[in-house]
Amino acid sequence: MSVGMFESLVTRHWFSAEARGVWSDRATLQAWLDVEAALARAQAELGMIPTEAARRVAEAADADRLDLDRLARDVLHAQHPFVPVLRQFEEMCGDPAAGFIHWGATTQNIFDTAAALQMRRTHAMIVERLNRAETALARLAHDHRDTPQAGRTHGQHALPITFGFKVAGWLEETRRDRARLEERIAGSFVACFGGAVGTFAAMEGRGREVEALAARILGLEPSGLPMRGSFDRAADYMTALGLLAGTARKIAGDVVFMQRTEIAEVEEAFHMGKVGSSTMAQKRNPSTALTLISLCRMTNAHVGLALDSMVRMDEGDSSATNVADALYPTLGVLGVSVAQTLEALVTGLVVHADAMRRNLDLTNGLIVSEAVMMRLSNAMGRHHAHHLLYDAAQRSVMEGVPFARAIREHAAMRDFKDVDLPLDPAGYLGDSAALAEDAARPTPSPEVA
Amino acid sequence: MSVGMFESLVTRHWFSAEARGVWSDRATLQAWLDVEAALARAQAELGMIPTEAARRVAEAADADRLDLDRLARDVLHAQHPFVPVLRQFEEMCGDPAAGFIHWGATTQNIFDTAAALQMRRTHAMIVERLNRAETALARLAHDHRDTPQAGRTHGQHALPITFGFKVAGWLEETRRDRARLEERIAGSFVACFGGAVGTFAAMEGRGREVEALAARILGLEPSGLPMRGSFDRAADYMTALGLLAGTARKIAGDVVFMQRTEIAEVEEAFHMGKVGSSTMAQKRNPSTALTLISLCRMTNAHVGLALDSMVRMDEGDSSATNVADALYPTLGVLGVSVAQTLEALVTGLVVHADAMRRNLDLTNGLIVSEAVMMRLSNAMGRHHAHHLLYDAAQRSVMEGVPFARAIREHAAMRDFKDVDLPLDPAGYLGDSAALAEDAARPTPSPEVA
Amino acid sequence: MSVGMFESLVTRHWFSAEARGVWSDRATLQAWLDVEAALARAQAELGMIPTEAARRVAEAADADRLDLDRLARDVLHAQHPFVPVLRQFEEMCGDPAAGFIHWGATTQNIFDTAAALQMRRTHAMIVERLNRAETALARLAHDHRDTPQAGRTHGQHALPITFGFKVAGWLEETRRDRARLEERIAGSFVACFGGAVGTFAAMEGRGREVEALAARILGLEPSGLPMRGSFDRAADYMTALGLLAGTARKIAGDVVFMQRTEIAEVEEAFHMGKVGSSTMAQKRNPSTALTLISLCRMTNAHVGLALDSMVRMDEGDSSATNVADALYPTLGVLGVSVAQTLEALVTGLVVHADAMRRNLDLTNGLIVSEAVMMRLSNAMGRHHAHHLLYDAAQRSVMEGVPFARAIREHAAMRDFKDVDLPLDPAGYLGDSAALAEDAARPTPSPEVA
Amino acid sequence: MSVGMFESLVTRHWFSAEARGVWSDRATLQAWLDVEAALARAQAELGMIPTEAARRVAEAADADRLDLDRLARDVLHAQHPFVPVLRQFEEMCGDPAAGFIHWGATTQNIFDTAAALQMRRTHAMIVERLNRAETALARLAHDHRDTPQAGRTHGQHALPITFGFKVAGWLEETRRDRARLEERIAGSFVACFGGAVGTFAAMEGRGREVEALAARILGLEPSGLPMRGSFDRAADYMTALGLLAGTARKIAGDVVFMQRTEIAEVEEAFHMGKVGSSTMAQKRNPSTALTLISLCRMTNAHVGLALDSMVRMDEGDSSATNVADALYPTLGVLGVSVAQTLEALVTGLVVHADAMRRNLDLTNGLIVSEAVMMRLSNAMGRHHAHHLLYDAAQRSVMEGVPFARAIREHAAMRDFKDVDLPLDPAGYLGDSAALAEDAARPTPSPEVA
Repeated sequence: MSVGMFESLVTRHWFSAEARGVWSDRATLQAWLDVEAALARAQAELGMIPTEAARRVAEAADADRLDLDRLARDVLHAQHPFVPVLRQFEEMCGDPAAGFIHWGATTQNIFDTAAALQMRRTHAMIVERLNRAETALARLAHDHRDTPQAGRTHGQHALPITFGFKVAGWLEETRRDRARLEERIAGSFVACFGGAVGTFAAMEGRGREVEALAARILGLEPSGLPMRGSFDRAADYMTALGLLAGTARKIAGDVVFMQRTEIAEVEEAFHMGKVGSSTMAQKRNPSTALTLISLCRMTNAHVGLALDSMVRMDEGDSSATNVADALYPTLGVLGVSVAQTLEALVTGLVVHADAMRRNLDLTNGLIVSEAVMMRLSNAMGRHHAHHLLYDAAQRSVMEGVPFARAIREHAAMRDFKDVDLPLDPAGYLGDSAALAEDAARPTPSPEVA
Repeated sequence: MSVGMFESLVTRHWFSAEARGVWSDRATLQAWLDVEAALARAQAELGMIPTEAARRVAEAADADRLDLDRLARDVLHAQHPFVPVLRQFEEMCGDPAAGFIHWGATTQNIFDTAAALQMRRTHAMIVERLNRAETALARLAHDHRDTPQAGRTHGQHALPITFGFKVAGWLEETRRDRARLEERIAGSFVACFGGAVGTFAAMEGRGREVEALAARILGLEPSGLPMRGSFDRAADYMTALGLLAGTARKIAGDVVFMQRTEIAEVEEAFHMGKVGSSTMAQKRNPSTALTLISLCRMTNAHVGLALDSMVRMDEGDSSATNVADALYPTLGVLGVSVAQTLEALVTGLVVHADAMRRNLDLTNGLIVSEAVMMRLSNAMGRHHAHHLLYDAAQRSVMEGVPFARAIREHAAMRDFKDVDLPLDPAGYLGDSAALAEDAARPTPSPEVA
Repeated sequence: MSVGMFESLVTRHWFSAEARGVWSDRATLQAWLDVEAALARAQAELGMIPTEAARRVAEAADADRLDLDRLARDVLHAQHPFVPVLRQFEEMCGDPAAGFIHWGATTQNIFDTAAALQMRRTHAMIVERLNRAETALARLAHDHRDTPQAGRTHGQHALPITFGFKVAGWLEETRRDRARLEERIAGSFVACFGGAVGTFAAMEGRGREVEALAARILGLEPSGLPMRGSFDRAADYMTALGLLAGTARKIAGDVVFMQRTEIAEVEEAFHMGKVGSSTMAQKRNPSTALTLISLCRMTNAHVGLALDSMVRMDEGDSSATNVADALYPTLGVLGVSVAQTLEALVTGLVVHADAMRRNLDLTNGLIVSEAVMMRLSNAMGRHHAHHLLYDAAQRSVMEGVPFARAIREHAAMRDFKDVDLPLDPAGYLGDSAALAEDAARPTPSPEVA
Repeated sequence: MSVGMFESLVTRHWFSAEARGVWSDRATLQAWLDVEAALARAQAELGMIPTEAARRVAEAADADRLDLDRLARDVLHAQHPFVPVLRQFEEMCGDPAAGFIHWGATTQNIFDTAAALQMRRTHAMIVERLNRAETALARLAHDHRDTPQAGRTHGQHALPITFGFKVAGWLEETRRDRARLEERIAGSFVACFGGAVGTFAAMEGRGREVEALAARILGLEPSGLPMRGSFDRAADYMTALGLLAGTARKIAGDVVFMQRTEIAEVEEAFHMGKVGSSTMAQKRNPSTALTLISLCRMTNAHVGLALDSMVRMDEGDSSATNVADALYPTLGVLGVSVAQTLEALVTGLVVHADAMRRNLDLTNGLIVSEAVMMRLSNAMGRHHAHHLLYDAAQRSVMEGVPFARAIREHAAMRDFKDVDLPLDPAGYLGDSAALAEDAARPTPSPEVA
């Protein structure tokens, strides 16, 4: 029996199986035991517990040896998620080593430090997928740096761009998202061994040494001040996942629009056998983009929860830390799933340059009214030119008069009959190509370097 | 391998196993097949498909006969969550009946209607638990209608109340939450058979009859206008779950405070073997209340997602409906879990009337400064009395002078030396007892009747 | 100097000036004084304070007589938002009447009851605007019940609908939103006179009578149990505003799409002088729809805050009630602004039936593949027909072969050469017209009746 | 007439008047004109417009000369927030200079760049207040590094700490919040002059030079790729405000608890004349902390809106950018208000070390059960010691037996009668003092350096 967001029959195939593996029962239990082993080893190196005990603990730290059925029963009875694990682990170690497990630590230390290990694993998966997405985006930006397309604002044709320029915007934003995650990962998920209230009370005055050493063994940074009341560092990374979700949702929304039946400028990867509908055989839905939007919506709902989880009483508060315990796997898996769905989306994107051109020409030049205005501005000033073009454009729309004629016939044009009107959209692309090419270069963008 | 919020080793034991059963793979698949069977039966009764086909479909609608491994593979290939189910179901029915399955329906019709069945099941569980919680609360309100306690505002002693009065507030709010859910359930989750865009296009003009009849078979109301673009009805119920979570979080917060070591006015149920900490043997944490707060935090994060899911394109939009597909089980299970944790909390609550009295007497009468003010108001006017009491109270706090003396010694008391000062907190309980007793009565509160 | 959301130079013209008037300083102060006057009158009728005092209080209750500059200074000094008002009001009443003001009430009683009066005023404005929006929608649904349009799911042409049918969906959802607000208004915003902790302690045992009578005078319902710790009733109304925002955002999104340069099926009202851009003279943006989406986004952010405000300590907690004090005007004004922008949007909508038809014909019949499938289903079974149509549709898309030919040439058609293929989109509208006509009728929809 | 969150009579005195000044109408208009002037100057330096025109524009850029009444009327007519400003500014400049204003820019460029200037001003205010708060916190941490207090987890006494240690946790988190804001400010709010779709189309191929130069004049960084579809950078800063709000809400919650009547360990600054209640003269509420929580709740609601505003169509989308336009002043003012209320809270905090000690001794040693366990662990192993202490603690709680006796009488103590039991809370403070002292040092914490 399994339910929940990741388990729903309808939605489960969206979620990264690899990321879910990081948070499986077995993997989580192993991470807990690994943290206990690192703690014991650090304490042995500092002479606080016998070296032999630490060796025995390390040997016994194998999650496969835990009896999971017994664990489930004991957790229900104790109403505590870790003490039953500790009991079995003590048995696995045997006396006297059992007496030195978990020395000076508290449950939440183990959970948070283990989650730090697991978050680093999902982080690596996220970065790997985003790197591949960026490579695909850079190729698109480069290949289409000169492919003209209608630029749109407020849902209306605005000015011409190139498709490569649009992709450059997606790429720069994705790069910044990745850079944020990379900057934050080490400081956000740290090793924490401060004990029950964070004072290292049971560490004989050597708590900070223990924490630093155990952190080094685990490949993490030490917490410094091991306050269980602080969640800002983890929340900082989690909000960066929210920014990634914001970016991905924007990109996916653009794709959904550009694949609209009437627009048809891009199309998602398709293979025979992929089904769009149980009843409409013709449907070729942008299902990757739509799934991506769903994942982003879910991610953002959990970012708010991460901020809420910062609000915690005193030196420890399970009403918040337990939310954190649920957030780690949820946002870990969601983050990887967003990254890999984004990768799938941009890697498989098919571009129809002909449709872009057809749509661009749809308004017979209205889309370059600014070009005409700038040309006329040199002659009559920017503001007079805007008035003239406004009148001509409205007349063109309402009376169906071609835009060029509406301009020529405007009273204010009397003295400027010789001015050439630049009405070819492909002639007013601004720096589209240069900006696309700059973004496509393999170096990270200057903002984040 | 299973992860996600409901699956986390740390948090999974919070969630109602019974509710999770409603959303298990098997139960979900069975709900889908039940909906298909009801559709076929309705269409047969209306003469749209052969009676024999409908009979065969009903017989074959047994989720145990589905090959789940094959299903998982096919869903990945088709990238469609239902068509592979349909394929197997067609095989289970055999020709010619297979040709009449899913007649005129679209996938989302099946999902939404099946989810309606499942939400009704979780709803019944919620109501059952809330009813029991209300019974326990009514008993507490009645038993403690005369138990004096400090009323607190802004974290400070304000005026005396009785504990029964406080509980009455919890009870009335819980009752209103339950009443809202009951009012909304039928209209929020409906049978919907409008087909791909909601026009009943493939139903030969008899779509509304089919929907009404199939709805009746399933014990649901028909959608009326079967728009897949509308989610307001389901979202309405989901926001009511948010209100329940708000109430439960408030109650739990009050309990956590009252169980504080220094306050000790109430205590959660405890049994030997329940563990508060892996390191602090003495801990008797309000773990039920804290878990309840965690669940409420999670619930509210998903209520925002339900509102977000109302934003959907055109006649159907999987970026939103798939969020809905994930929300049904998530909020269904969360709702039951909130209700049952609330039930556990209030059912097991131990009340320490002596501690309540001790805390009430802590300020030597400052808590009834209003009582004194009202007494003096009859003599000197409300505003003059407030000025006098303000001075006396601040002097009492800052100079450590007993409040009674500070009043008596105030210059403005010169002409009122004979006025009796009502400084016993238990003598200024207002209508606490009557309000508690009213709330404790078994009838529903008038607001929601 | 004035800033904030409603005050920003860029956004202020979105907000209903009429609704803002309800929450102006003067209007708010007057509401406070009105509540004090009603309280005094009720207490005089019950013989608790002198009739003459109540008469004097009623006479003096004129916000124009308050010295606002002095008020601002005193509020800063007292760090209390109401006591300085009370001081001036006492002076305005003079002794002895001044001594009977605010008898047994607490500040939050006055604020909440006054806000109830103000929320009712904004509610009336919301309903008025929604009624007009519904009238406009009903006219559109009726007028266009037979205007064919492409139905779209997942951003792709799905099946034909009529524009009237689409509007019917908007209309039904809007009606349900309005009905929810109307059902909830009276119970959500009530008169509350329970005093500091809600026990009517200073009301001599007649508190509930006082509350009921004052409520009647003010045209409100009494709170019953006057708990300041409960916010569920107000939050219930506020979440209904969130549902309205969800609906409005959906409708606005549909309009933005349908007004896209390439789609051009509808257009917002336009007048000469309306400017789309400071630089692109041709722009005719769907600015009403986009503004509406902005307003809805803001509204939903505040709905989450309303749920958060339910979490409050004990018998009173200004960290929550002060959020409520800010939410009343914010959501009041936002609600009216959403309703009136929705009204403006649907009232002014221009429909281009020719563009709808042009877009509908774009796929040369692919959009009615389901119609063909249902026709063939009668001959060969639904599932075989779906397979055939899937192949033909993909071939049509990929090879550019007309859909009709791709069907005819499919191997499975061998035995069904005589079957007529229904490829005219306008011939497969299902119950679109009937559903539109039903919705357009002036009676409320059955779901909410 | 003025309403809205910042304007509500009840709540307005919470908000920083200085920060609101940054976003007043006049200040905003001046920022817009400053941006236009910088653009003109940059273009003149590059020889794109006449030097004389740029000089004239700079001279005329005085917001005091704008006719605000006319502006309000014209904005309503044009339904555009900037074109009417431009019209007046053109008149103020006169021909020919008027013809060179706004050359190649679009409205949103002006808004976003001006908002960047204004956000930098509010940022400076935030940092200034946080610096002062940190100084006060460092003093508290230092002064109370040895003041024993009960450490609490899950609302229960856990282990002793010192008050200085607790404050160190607040301080480190506040420092990280400030460091995040400082790291992000320059990259989050940039100068953007890409024109309508971000291609610098009307800048004759020199757009990036213009942007870089104008940015330098304004003291900002250039946008690089001037996409109006990207909001991730601003949202990044805004989420950091959410983290600050999370921290402040945590600190304020701790203060509210510690000022509880029964706890009385700290107290907010108080002055005669400050009023806690209109009816309860004795009330000395933690009103600064409660106000701070309110502000944090509001801030976090708007952080979600910032993430939502990242979702925007194509090259520009006013349904999102207009939300951004409202978010700038809202979050700017909220950020400063949170920082200054936090400063006020921690600067004025009065500490009652005696009450801390009294509460610490309340459980007669149960709070140091871990100390006893660690002592016994050396003798009998950690796990056996935990079992023993668990039994003794429960017996102590349930039978009222002193903890020391319950330990001594436990069967497992038979062989350890000589072990000394460390039951003085002040003897088990761990590294509290050292950690407090480290945090109190003026250097920034290593995590953020």
